[in-house]
Amino acid sequence: MNKNYKVAIIGATGLVGRTVLKVLEERNLSYLNYTLFCSNKSAGTKIKFFDTTYIVCELNENSFDEGFDFAIFCAGGSTSEKYAPIAASKGCIVVDNSSIFRMEPEVPLVVPEVNPEDISKNKGIIANPNCSTIQAVLPLKAIDDKYHIKRIVYSTYQAVSGAGRFGIEDLENKSVGKNLKKFPHSIYNNCIPHIDIFMPDGYTKEEHKMIDETRKILNKPNLPITATTVRVPVVNCHGESINVELEEDFDIYDIKILLQNFPGIIVVDDPDKNYYPLASQADGNDEVFVGRIRRDFSVKYGLNLWVVADNLRKGAATNAVQILEKLIEN
Amino acid sequence: MNKNYKVAIIGATGLVGRTVLKVLEERNLSYLNYTLFCSNKSAGTKIKFFDTTYIVCELNENSFDEGFDFAIFCAGGSTSEKYAPIAASKGCIVVDNSSIFRMEPEVPLVVPEVNPEDISKNKGIIANPNCSTIQAVLPLKAIDDKYHIKRIVYSTYQAVSGAGRFGIEDLENKSVGKNLKKFPHSIYNNCIPHIDIFMPDGYTKEEHKMIDETRKILNKPNLPITATTVRVPVVNCHGESINVELEEDFDIYDIKILLQNFPGIIVVDDPDKNYYPLASQADGNDEVFVGRIRRDFSVKYGLNLWVVADNLRKGAATNAVQILEKLIEN
Repeated sequence: MNKNYKVAIIGATGLVGRTVLKVLEERNLSYLNYTLFCSNKSAGTKIKFFDTTYIVCELNENSFDEGFDFAIFCAGGSTSEKYAPIAASKGCIVVDNSSIFRMEPEVPLVVPEVNPEDISKNKGIIANPNCSTIQAVLPLKAIDDKYHIKRIVYSTYQAVSGAGRFGIEDLENKSVGKNLKKFPHSIYNNCIPHIDIFMPDGYTKEEHKMIDETRKILNKPNLPITATTVRVPVVNCHGESINVELEEDFDIYDIKILLQNFPGIIVVDDPDKNYYPLASQADGNDEVFVGRIRRDFSVKYGLNLWVVADNLRKGAATNAVQILEKLIEN
Repeated sequence: MNKNYKVAIIGATGLVGRTVLKVLEERNLSYLNYTLFCSNKSAGTKIKFFDTTYIVCELNENSFDEGFDFAIFCAGGSTSEKYAPIAASKGCIVVDNSSIFRMEPEVPLVVPEVNPEDISKNKGIIANPNCSTIQAVLPLKAIDDKYHIKRIVYSTYQAVSGAGRFGIEDLENKSVGKNLKKFPHSIYNNCIPHIDIFMPDGYTKEEHKMIDETRKILNKPNLPITATTVRVPVVNCHGESINVELEEDFDIYDIKILLQNFPGIIVVDDPDKNYYPLASQADGNDEVFVGRIRRDFSVKYGLNLWVVADNLRKGAATNAVQILEKLIEN
């Protein structure tokens, strides 16, 4: 089982790429044979990884001739679009962090606690979902299996690390005006209801991703969902206010038990002790934290949840590494 | 009409109290005869107001013997509970910023653009609604009058100034642990899904206020509403993601026109230009800013809104002064 597979990490010098390396170390996947790739401008960067100093190589069209078994792509959409099909055509199974392939019918979109069975359907590319979707679908799957979700209303509180290093710099430097590197407005002291680009229908692409990807992962292609996604001045870890309507009546205590027993979820829900999910608590952890679990009395079988997770880890790097682990297992 | 009424400002040295004085100056209510009151510990504070230096007096049980016509209370619930009935019993009409009297059936709860007709029903006390409710009910009233609201789902992004001066200090000092003056956890780099105290049903009192006060102001006592209220690391101005179901079908363009024509609302909704409501824009203004106006396709007649306002001004001080102006007019 501990076969010496060849694994390529694409975008190893970026925020998600470095988190992937950290997660691989923590999960002790030291028996794999790694090559680290990046774009032209970072080529030659030295990275210490598993007590070895790796020199990061420039990615090119011949990079996959070396016979990689697996690759984790975290260098953005244009790199994935160009190189992931090349890798796949040479027999490498790609776990892709970008949004490029997520909605392709033949590409599985996988959260290992939710739909691991979809991994085996891959034709060379497996997509890692959007960060805000990943943390939502764990509790939703736990609930849907028993009570069947009828409708979802998402409002998100998304950290700046989701926008990469420049996003963090905009917050930490309190940038305004032409000094902004990432955001269209100052994120310091502001909540910005605009993530990714705007679509013709007035929704952002981030909102569409949450809607479309939730449907695909839960395998409910027509599930009614709406979303408002908002960037907040927090460095790391996304929060989500999730309002759910269920098909069937439920006991709130049973919902808590279902969530507690679901893999990858930690229930933090003791208002009397001021226990509820917080970014400061989720930061650096791989679990999805769920709390403020309450009946919504405004609709027949309604439920409110507050969900927090580390968007760089479970929302990106950890989920990709978990998929890699499942690929290695099989 | 410009009668020289006697007006008491209670809690003049607090964050809302000082904003009330600023708004009175800006709106040029210089012809009124003011007395400023505060608690024991701030008595004697000098405040420059309308080019005069006022010495703030300690409030006591005889303060209202002097025959005040009107009082604005912004010193917190316990002061209002004790002194507002005394003031009212002596013929003074009280505009109260606390939550103590808001749900009393004989106390009007007023947002002047929404239900000014309720002012005349007062029996000595008029309540100023909760900040997060005030900014929501302006757009909701505009929409309800024509399309009849069926259900509301609120998720809030509330600034620390709503928790007073210590709330601002907790954010600006990046306080943690025992250095926290106001919040149960660090608000720096965190969103805290906990405002006011927790109730036995798992909701916070802030969430109950939004539900109950919206129903009372819109005069729809059974309107289905749910809420998740969250403190965010922003100094001033609350944001709200509001999801609404309507009884009747609508044209999204007509909704925008209704909102644009409603007093006190500024529509900021041009995604192509990155125009949408922001705290940095609302700060220091008296209007409610509404944008991200989109159909919610997950339900029959659904609508999403993003609403931002200055919680110290329209959410507290300005609304109270507007009520005072209406009282003086009549």
